[in-house]
Amino acid sequence: MHTSAAPLSPPFAQGPLRAVPQALLDALAQRFGAQCSTALAVREQHGRDEGSIQAPPPAAVVFAESTQDVQDAVRLAAQYSVPVIPYGAGSSLEGHLLAVQGGISIDVGRMNRVLAIDAEDLTVTVQPGITRKQLNDAIKDTGLFFPIDPGADASIGGMAATRASGTNAVRYGTMRENVLALELVTASGEALRTGTRAKKSSAGYDLTRLIVGSEGTLGIITEVTVRLFPLPEAVSAAVCSFPSIEAAVRTVIQTIQLGVPIARCELIDAHSVRAVNRHSKLSLREEPMLLMEFHGSPASVQEQAETVQDIAREFGGNAFEWASTPEERTRLWTARHNAYFAAMQTRPGCKAITTDACVPISRLADCLLDSVAEADASGLPYFLVGHVGDGNFHFGYLIDPAIPEERERAEQLNHQLVARALRLAGTCTGEHGVGIHKMGFLRDEAGDGAIAMMRAIKQALDPQNLLNPGKIFH
Amino acid sequence: MHTSAAPLSPPFAQGPLRAVPQALLDALAQRFGAQCSTALAVREQHGRDEGSIQAPPPAAVVFAESTQDVQDAVRLAAQYSVPVIPYGAGSSLEGHLLAVQGGISIDVGRMNRVLAIDAEDLTVTVQPGITRKQLNDAIKDTGLFFPIDPGADASIGGMAATRASGTNAVRYGTMRENVLALELVTASGEALRTGTRAKKSSAGYDLTRLIVGSEGTLGIITEVTVRLFPLPEAVSAAVCSFPSIEAAVRTVIQTIQLGVPIARCELIDAHSVRAVNRHSKLSLREEPMLLMEFHGSPASVQEQAETVQDIAREFGGNAFEWASTPEERTRLWTARHNAYFAAMQTRPGCKAITTDACVPISRLADCLLDSVAEADASGLPYFLVGHVGDGNFHFGYLIDPAIPEERERAEQLNHQLVARALRLAGTCTGEHGVGIHKMGFLRDEAGDGAIAMMRAIKQALDPQNLLNPGKIFH
Repeated sequence: MHTSAAPLSPPFAQGPLRAVPQALLDALAQRFGAQCSTALAVREQHGRDEGSIQAPPPAAVVFAESTQDVQDAVRLAAQYSVPVIPYGAGSSLEGHLLAVQGGISIDVGRMNRVLAIDAEDLTVTVQPGITRKQLNDAIKDTGLFFPIDPGADASIGGMAATRASGTNAVRYGTMRENVLALELVTASGEALRTGTRAKKSSAGYDLTRLIVGSEGTLGIITEVTVRLFPLPEAVSAAVCSFPSIEAAVRTVIQTIQLGVPIARCELIDAHSVRAVNRHSKLSLREEPMLLMEFHGSPASVQEQAETVQDIAREFGGNAFEWASTPEERTRLWTARHNAYFAAMQTRPGCKAITTDACVPISRLADCLLDSVAEADASGLPYFLVGHVGDGNFHFGYLIDPAIPEERERAEQLNHQLVARALRLAGTCTGEHGVGIHKMGFLRDEAGDGAIAMMRAIKQALDPQNLLNPGKIFH
Repeated sequence: MHTSAAPLSPPFAQGPLRAVPQALLDALAQRFGAQCSTALAVREQHGRDEGSIQAPPPAAVVFAESTQDVQDAVRLAAQYSVPVIPYGAGSSLEGHLLAVQGGISIDVGRMNRVLAIDAEDLTVTVQPGITRKQLNDAIKDTGLFFPIDPGADASIGGMAATRASGTNAVRYGTMRENVLALELVTASGEALRTGTRAKKSSAGYDLTRLIVGSEGTLGIITEVTVRLFPLPEAVSAAVCSFPSIEAAVRTVIQTIQLGVPIARCELIDAHSVRAVNRHSKLSLREEPMLLMEFHGSPASVQEQAETVQDIAREFGGNAFEWASTPEERTRLWTARHNAYFAAMQTRPGCKAITTDACVPISRLADCLLDSVAEADASGLPYFLVGHVGDGNFHFGYLIDPAIPEERERAEQLNHQLVARALRLAGTCTGEHGVGIHKMGFLRDEAGDGAIAMMRAIKQALDPQNLLNPGKIFH
């Protein structure tokens, strides 16, 4: 267990811890009453995420219930030059919400209302704390759905802040493509709006896209308008096992290159299938596997599935096994989403060091297979899953956090993998964000000039460096 | 004809004219030789666009042939605090390339090479001066195409800079969705890269999307990587006439709300059809018309077309007339693209004041029909075309530039239309950009807070205000 005294896990530097004066805590208590907590348990819960890095917790947690609450908390913190860290559902893997320079946490979880369903425009406007499952539940009578599905039941605000994507992105895009408009609170506590509900616009700088993926460092998101999609007339999910990871990956590459509008296309390696079988009481064939879903009219779904089945057969894939009912599909996708936790259970007490490279589809086999060989040679237990239709995949190296050498070995594998992805015209992070884990990788990827541009923007919009400092870049 | 002495057309303020010292012209001549011109005809050609606003021409034009040329021109200009204005194909409608504060033009038209075709990844990397037609010509043997089609044969760099879209955007998205990576030259003359060829990324601030649509004010684009799409197996284009604009628009709204993946969905009003018939020697029925295109497998194209034909019939639309051969389709789309020039010819010597509002699809009828009524009542001749599948449409008010009252009346109509679009959750510009024409509209749309954020970014990245000053905001 980690405690308030836990240092930031090596090799991550602490950064300067900034003082949180009692006067600020008093002012917060006065303004927010029971909406503000300094209880250790509450602070600790807001000072960790699903990743492997630890840091001391924030000095206080404000439970915002309105944009005005966020503005007031930011203004008070700014008076005392104290960092503020937005908190959604806590499902980050990259240390986004760790108080690495001290400060207070602003939890927007109570701001979880649906503000406007504009079904006829295929848009919905929500507060940032609503989770994707809550959102889909709220719109289930409209015949529409919000497709972006990172696995975890993340908050929409957090998903916007990290430019999240997940299993449906291959067809429906990521938060980059699907956020239309935002309300945000700036470093000086002002609220402003970016974007409109129009589907496209050339109206000045694309502030919406600048904030999406800025990881809470340029503003705190207080409202999000996202696109929705009509529920497909027909949905079919299929599982296909392959003799090797390579065969599965070659099938994916050809599917994408042919332009098949596949809705989900997930790779799960044999380690993960084993873990999932045990965790979710399934009996999937314990071989590398593609988990696919097709959306469209009945005719189009059949056409897509036949095309992919033909490709898979060429590469030695087995006959598709179909999950036709909604219940079977839910079971299958729940199993996929639980792969992370299922794999963690194979090594009790372990932590996962998770990679997130994404490469152009033609480079997927090169990037992935060499990394599999390195992981196998390392002796570390690991699992491999991936949104391979997008060229994005995750190794989870399962380390014993008490053995520093294991963390080092895992980070070394990660390093080699990222270097390979960059050589192959890819990115160090397809969807998890930079946080504090990938700052070095981002520098390698973007170069000093682009980092200097990001830093200049940060400096211009947050001159006191109050908004989630110590993330993305130094 | 306008001359070097032509003042900026009212009601647009000139802005402070900044001196271009002879020493800079000498330095440019020395560095660039015949690649730099101060001839009046060359300067005038680079000091106007397809819009209705006039300004004095730039003091010199540099014909850049490489990123290094752009860097050197920017560095020399920066030494003398002289503005630089990037020039692509000159097809802007909003005065983007007018030297409203003086300065020099950097013409990237000679930087028109294809740098890398990565067909297996559906991407291509080009220099900014290549036009969209040149690009499609260069990749025609790959089985892929670049769908974004603003009508004009614009340069890819200019299209990125204005976040262009056009007829195919309803299915394939705009430059916002289709630019993956950029190289740009900053205000200090440094070259840097943004993005990668990976399909998605969460690696830090989305500098690519910040530069896309920044209209040359944050950097000069010197390389662009865009997405390509497989040529559809089947393509069908159809024309459908309607008894009223309202009937056509209601058909569009229902088509989009049903999620039909229509590839093009254009409205042309009866004025425009008449002009197009005369200009392109066609015999289209002179009624409000939808011009549509369907892409997909043969089965999917048929399915889509039947769905839309059923909807159109409900609203009194005629039977579809099909353009089945590539030649017939090209003829039809060329006619559509010539609507602007065809309409201009109906009033010799006129200028068009062009609107560009875009609203959520459910508001399209409200926004458009009230604006038609106002235009009819104004007595000004006009035409109306639109990418209505995206909720985007253009009135062109045809004014005699010698009659100030006509310009005023047209701008008044534009003003009323934009105010209406903003009330209906839309934007003042779907695809043309802000330039100098829509600065007031942008302020109405975005609000002071968002404009202040844009200005802070501009100030941080271009402290001397050298890059295309006097555009987007004051």
